[in-house]
Formats: sequence, structure tokens, C-alpha cells
Amino acid sequence: MNSDMNYYFNKTIASDFESVKKRVIEELGKEGFGILSEIDVKATFEKKLEIDFRKYQILGACNPKFAHKAITAEDKIGTMLPCNVVLQELENGDIEVAAINATASMQAVENSKVAEIAKEISGRLKKVVDAL
Amino acid sequence: MNSDMNYYFNKTIASDFESVKKRVIEELGKEGFGILSEIDVKATFEKKLEIDFRKYQILGACNPKFAHKAITAEDKIGTMLPCNVVLQELENGDIEVAAINATASMQAVENSKVAEIAKEISGRLKKVVDAL
Repeated sequence: MNSDMNYYFNKTIASDFESVKKRVIEELGKEGFGILSEIDVKATFEKKLEIDFRKYQILGACNPKFAHKAITAEDKIGTMLPCNVVLQELENGDIEVAAINATASMQAVENSKVAEIAKEISGRLKKVVDAL
Repeated sequence: MNSDMNYYFNKTIASDFESVKKRVIEELGKEGFGILSEIDVKATFEKKLEIDFRKYQILGACNPKFAHKAITAEDKIGTMLPCNVVLQELENGDIEVAAINATASMQAVENSKVAEIAKEISGRLKKVVDAL
């Protein structure tokens, strides 16, 4: 366990929200991740809290092969799945992408098989962000 | 940080999947959580891997007020939201519910405001599970 580890991989891109989202989904696809959930945080805050908020979405990315391995090794690991990728619009209009570092988020799970899978998944998510 | 902390709160209930799911959603509602995502893991594995799997769903629960506080305090905390509640059918037909312990899962986030919110949210999720 390394408490200095960052819990996300991120990159800021000078482009518009929808173009960045499209590229993120493409790059995730190359690493075997499909999108299982899509949460529009801006819309949720507007609807539930009547608060105006910047563009902010959470994509739930899942590599089914590794998800199956993880759930087989640790049946309640679903509480930490899918792996989230956040897209948010910054004040200057740039888009920041941040993917979860599964190795950091799964620190509390004491299971060496999960740690191995988390390392593999984190490596792939880092690759996705690096490729943007 | 307490490495002995469990990363979930769970309970096993002798009832059918849909009845338990309904009760979970009701109890979450009492604590201010709505469901923002719903992932049918069994269906995903069947579709993507052609693997037969037990009933297993991941509900993404969100208390908008606390989510807003958390994202305002830590803009990339969306990589760990919403808070997941897993429902799975055990071999004997009972249903196990497991909610994320946000305090454990957010250990890697070094932000005292997030830690406070995580504590509040974990307390509410524990209450939800205890009430089942």
C-alpha cells in the first residue's frame, strides 16, 4: 500500500466536450472497455438541487473479461465497479479527463488476486489517458 | 487511515431478488439517495463473454447534496461516485446486499473535507443496510 499514490490519471485537452468524450470512448474501446453507465452530473444537480453546474460527466467503463475475473476472486468487488472516467469542462473551456487508478481505490480490498487485476486495469486506464 | 476497515457493509436476506432490490431502493430513498445507474452484471457477462452468471446487479446511489459538496471540495472525486450497492443471489437462493464503505474506498483521497463527507455517507449507507 502506497499512500502517496494518486487516485486518478488525468489530462487536460483543448477541445470541446463532445469531441473529447468521443475520443475517450474510442481509446477505452482499444483497451477492451465498454461503457456501462453514463451519469450527467450537471443535469442531475440542475434537476435535484436547482444548481447551475459546469459540464461534468461520469462514464462507467468496464472490461468484461477482467470484471469477471475480479468478481470471481472477490464477490463484493462490484461495490467498486465499473471503473469511472470523469470528463469536466474547466473555466477556460478546456476539458479535463480523469480515470480512476484502481490500484489506489482498491487499497482497502485485501485480496492479492484483486490487486493483480487492479494493476492490469490501472495500466490500461493510464494508457487510455496517455493516448488522448 | 485504518487498513483493517472493511470496504463494504453487507447483509444477507432470505427473500427474492426483486423484492430485496425494491426494499434497498426504498431505504436508500429515506437517506436521500437516488439511483443514477443500474448495471446488470449477469446480463453483461452473458452478452459479452457468453458466460452464465448468477443474478448480480450494481446500483449507483447518489445523494445529490453530498455529491455536490464532495465535487466542490475535490473536483475529481467523481471517479469514485456514485456509491455502489451490489445485490447478488447466493447459491442457496438468498440475496446478499453490499454497500460501499466510502470511508474505506476514499482512503487514497487526501482531503479532509472529502473524509468528512465520506464518513457521513458511509454512516447513511450502513443505516440503509442495517434497516433491511
